[in-house]
Order: sequence, then C-alpha cells, then structure tokens
Amino acid sequence: MCAHSILLDFLMDPTRFADDNQRNVIFKTIFGELENVFPQLKTVYEMATEDGYLYVLAHNNVLIITLRFFNQGVITINVEFYQDEGQEPKLNYTKYISIENILKKKLPAKRSKLLPSIKRGGILDIYLTSTDERLLEYDIDKLVFEQQSEFQKIQIVHSKTLGNMLVLDELQNIAESDLIYTETLMQRGIENYKDKEICILGGGDGALLYELLKEEPKFVTMLEIDEIVMQACNKHLRSICGDVLEKRKGANYEIVVADCMAYMKKYVKEGKKFDYVFGDLTDVPISDTPTGEIWDFIRTILEHSLKLLKPDGKYLTHANGATCPEALQMFEEQLKLLTPPVKFTKATAFVPSFMEHWVFYQVSLA
Amino acid sequence: MCAHSILLDFLMDPTRFADDNQRNVIFKTIFGELENVFPQLKTVYEMATEDGYLYVLAHNNVLIITLRFFNQGVITINVEFYQDEGQEPKLNYTKYISIENILKKKLPAKRSKLLPSIKRGGILDIYLTSTDERLLEYDIDKLVFEQQSEFQKIQIVHSKTLGNMLVLDELQNIAESDLIYTETLMQRGIENYKDKEICILGGGDGALLYELLKEEPKFVTMLEIDEIVMQACNKHLRSICGDVLEKRKGANYEIVVADCMAYMKKYVKEGKKFDYVFGDLTDVPISDTPTGEIWDFIRTILEHSLKLLKPDGKYLTHANGATCPEALQMFEEQLKLLTPPVKFTKATAFVPSFMEHWVFYQVSLA
Repeated sequence: MCAHSILLDFLMDPTRFADDNQRNVIFKTIFGELENVFPQLKTVYEMATEDGYLYVLAHNNVLIITLRFFNQGVITINVEFYQDEGQEPKLNYTKYISIENILKKKLPAKRSKLLPSIKRGGILDIYLTSTDERLLEYDIDKLVFEQQSEFQKIQIVHSKTLGNMLVLDELQNIAESDLIYTETLMQRGIENYKDKEICILGGGDGALLYELLKEEPKFVTMLEIDEIVMQACNKHLRSICGDVLEKRKGANYEIVVADCMAYMKKYVKEGKKFDYVFGDLTDVPISDTPTGEIWDFIRTILEHSLKLLKPDGKYLTHANGATCPEALQMFEEQLKLLTPPVKFTKATAFVPSFMEHWVFYQVSLA
Repeated sequence: MCAHSILLDFLMDPTRFADDNQRNVIFKTIFGELENVFPQLKTVYEMATEDGYLYVLAHNNVLIITLRFFNQGVITINVEFYQDEGQEPKLNYTKYISIENILKKKLPAKRSKLLPSIKRGGILDIYLTSTDERLLEYDIDKLVFEQQSEFQKIQIVHSKTLGNMLVLDELQNIAESDLIYTETLMQRGIENYKDKEICILGGGDGALLYELLKEEPKFVTMLEIDEIVMQACNKHLRSICGDVLEKRKGANYEIVVADCMAYMKKYVKEGKKFDYVFGDLTDVPISDTPTGEIWDFIRTILEHSLKLLKPDGKYLTHANGATCPEALQMFEEQLKLLTPPVKFTKATAFVPSFMEHWVFYQVSLA
C-alpha cells in the first residue's frame, strides 16, 4: 500500500541530442516501447528546459511517466503510480527489465540503469542510510514497537534477515544479528574481564552488559537514562540482552536509571575507580568542526571517564562509520588534547544491521 | 556529473484530500515552502488523475519538480536537475531536510520520508541490489577494470570501504572485505584440509585456492573456464588471492583453464576421487520452478561431484541469499532427489560486499 517510483536512465552520446529532429526520433523510440506495455499512452505536456527537454506522459490517468532529456547525454524516465495492498502490479518488474534491455540496444545507449521500485508513503521505514548518507533498503516487514520517550524516538522494527532491530531517532542502533558489534566494542578475546570492575555509560539495549556478564566480572554498573529503551529491548531484543534488563540487578551487576554525568561526578568525588569504562552513548557526530553541544558532551564524558579509571584501566567506545574519516579524525584530535594524556588503539568491524564498517576506540592513560 | 532525483513523501490523513479546496490549501503550503528556496518557481502544468492530482513545477527552466497527490493519503515530491562535476549543488541537502521538517509540521503529515539524492546516468554503477531485489547504494568511486569475456561481463570496481570488488554480469561476486565468505564456504576451523585432495569447480577469483593452500592440503586442482577473470583478479584482487593466479601451479596445486564439466567426466572415467569438491560456480538461481538450463547445470554438477567424492568426502558450495528461502528450498529438494542419497548441513554468514546473509551447503554421502 504505497506509491511506486520506477527509475530508469540511459547514458548516451550527447551529440545525439544536438537538434530537435534527433531528439524527436529518440523520443518516438522510447514512447513506442512504453506504449507497448501501457496502451493509450498520451503525451499530456512537454517543454524545452535550459538543458534539455521534458515530457509528461499519462496512461489511463493513473500512471504518470516523466521523461527528461539532459543535453549532457542523460535520459531519465520515471514511472509513477499507486498500488493498493493485494493489488496486482501495473506491470511485472521483469517487464521493466525487458524495456531497459530493448531500449539500451535500440537507442543505443552506452549505459543503462534500472533501479528496483522505490516504495513511497508507506507506513514502514524501509529505507535507512549509511553514515555517509548512502541509500540502503532493508527487508523490514513489521513495526514492532514505537514510542517517543523524553529523550528520543524509539522504534523496534523487524527485519527478515537481521531480526529485531532498535532504531533511535531514525538511526540503526543494534539488531539481533549484531553480536560482532558488542564483541568488537568489548574486544572479546583481547581484554580480560574476569574479576574486573566495570562501568557502562548508556548501553540501554542491554547487549554489552549481557555479554560482559559471561566473562565473570567482579561488578558491572550500568548508567542508562532512558527507561523506555530498556523496557522495549527487554521485551523485543531478548536474544541479545537475556534477562539483564528484566532483573536490573544481580550478584555482580546493577542497572541505574540515571543521567550518567551526575553519577560520574559523584564517583569522582567518592574516589571510585574502574578497570573499564564503556562509552556506549551517542555516536561521534559528523560535523565540520568539533564544536557545539554534542562535542562538548563527548569531551565531558571523556574527561570524567579518565578520572574514573584505575592507572591501567581502559575506556572503550564505539565512534562512527569508517566512511567518515573526518569525524573519526576529529575524535582522535579530541583524544590528543586530553589531560592526563592518553594513548589509543582502534578496531573495525562490519556490522550487519549498519551495512557498513564501524570504528571502535580503546583509550588508556599514557 | 549526473542527474539527481530528490524524492520526498508525506503520508497524511486521506480525508484531507476530499475536495479541491482542501487540496489547494495543501498545495499552496508546499508551493510556498519550495518557492522560498527556488525563487520564481512556476506551475507549468497540472492535471487531475484518476486517483489524485499532478502538478509540474519549474524553477529557472532547469530544475523540475513533480508533485503528486494520491487520494490514499500520499503526497510525493520529486526534485530533478542535472549537476555537472565540480558544480555547486542547486540546494544544499540539509536544506531539503529542513523543508521536510517544516512541511511535516505544517501540513501536518503523519509520516515523512526524504531519501538521499538518487544519482542517475553516471558512469559508475553505484547501485546494486540484494538477492531479494532491495536497492543498495555502494561507496564505489572507481571503475578499475571492465571487459566482456566470452562468458560474462567482468568488472572490478573500487569501494572506499570494501576495497576492490569483483562484479560479474552486474552481480556482486567477492570483495577484499570478504574473507568471511571464503571461510564459511570452506568451513575453516571445522573441516580439516591437511593432506587432503581437493577439486575446485570455478573459483576464478583465486580466494578459495589461496585460503585452502594455507591449510597444507596434499593437492588442489582448480578448474576455471574464464582466463580473463583470473587475469583481472590477479592484478586487482591480490590481497585475497596472493600469487596463486599469477603462478597457476605449485608443489601442491594446479589451475586448469577449462570447462569443469569436461574434466569431471574425464576424472569419473579415470576413477579419480577427492576428499573435497567445491562448487564455486554460478549462484543457485531464483526461479519459480527448478527447471531450465541453469537448474540442469546445477544438477549435472551435483551428480558428477558426488561421483568424484571418496566415501567420506564432502561437496561444499555457496547457494544464495538468506532472503530467498524459496530458491534455497528448491536447491534442497534437488539434493534430496540425488542418487546416491546425500545428507547435508548449511551455514550462514553476513558477507560485507553483498550486504546480506549468504547460505552455504555442506553435502556428504548418506
């Protein structure tokens, strides 16, 4: 139950568009092919543009085709219509593939490209983006949970292949497929958590706490501000968080629903120290300069975390997508400005639900 | 240097579209917002459709906006223009985000969606699809190699995050990021290849042979038909195939450039047997019924492979995306029909360059 846009393009020799006659011949070829599958196709409007030509075609007054010639050698064709649930598609997708192939030969075009139908105005958000703003279509088939909390828009959606997936403010957060995310964040197999004292800043999905507890730490304190995230994940992401969000505390862990900043300040005052502090909060922002509220927040978190570390302690955090070296660079520059001075290593993992490589940092006192 | 389509949709209460007056008010709100950023915007055409209304707007006769109202409650807005290399974008993308947010409130809409700009008619194929035909935008920035061989269209493209990537007939094949693909295919850590005799059917990218040789097999014979694939991978995918495609033979391996069927028949006749046969050829097809040339090919390969196995030997192969259970089911049904009877297990891995889970089979004599 959504509108469909089917986008088809051809890259041609631009000299072919030199005059009206030539363009007309090309147009007739395209129109003829489209008319074969959309009978009684009509040109309802046409106009010369500064850089080419525009045609608007209509089929039964429901399916509209816009066809543009760009003098640089590109032809774009958009077929648009609405399709109700259960309704037969106006045209089988394989038919579009055949139109593409026929026209590529007939025009002829150097290159052609037909995109899968773009579904618009649906209820589910099936298109998400990578860090570098690339378009990614997910096999999301169900909205499992949606609520606006005091802090963020919380959604849990179901993907056929990734399982349930937490989406915060339209950003992929973690899915049932993403054990690699937690394992890279905690550097499983490299760091030794046995009998260690650990503090998690954020971590509301419960996955990090759940995995850490398998390594027999002395005690883990988790400071998460958003009660609703935890309730939603407890119910719908059980496979990655077990019962830790349900129980909230055990012999060697406790979840505190609170602003982590307040608790960090309290811990600093008390002289409390940890072997590991995890920054499992907001991603490192993508911005031109390391200024503004979010960067101030990141710096404050870093500074306070260092104060909570034992001399050989570590601060472990996720940062951002590997496609955004500028954001990562900026984060590293912030690390270099810290007092006391720190050293750091990094690790990368391809996270299934992000469909991209993610970068994680391991920071320790120099 | 390509055309851009910027697609924005709003999902609204359909009763809001009940009459011309209401629609007119909504149109004016949208037009007003667009006019703010595209001065002297003009409505050049409008028409009632069976299921709504269409407006065509033009800005400076270069940027065309098509705006559709669908009575089901959906409004789609397409902004289209051509942008030469190095040319400033007509409008910063963040401006589109702000239009989306303002209109979502003003209309008001229940949902809104703005997609990243769709790049059309470019020279690089940055859009590929998943097995289930989902649209995936890659960070491909260079065409490294392109040649049509006797058998297929061979491309090697460069992705900023996946490294060089082999694309055969427009399908993602393997990238420098995909060690997990080869390791899952060969079941590294589960199967023991030491001193074993192995036959690879296909495997032209060289990755499987390269990884198998690390496990000290007795001898690996690789039967690959496409010389050009091997030359291209040898040059541009060196990090995944080492020097095996360069050398072509060594103390414990040999690559034969040949149709694997002919060699399999020869081996059957000679009574030659292997511990492992790898099917690293075409993917299992997505089709309604297991008929046609490709399924015949798959069955023939399976039957001959079984004849080449030692009693405790295994046939290992990749199959298809986990999003296509029907294709996998059909493959399993073919397995069940084989004589001699076989048993099989399967394994799944998320392959970075496919951006999806892939399924692999391990077949042995029952």
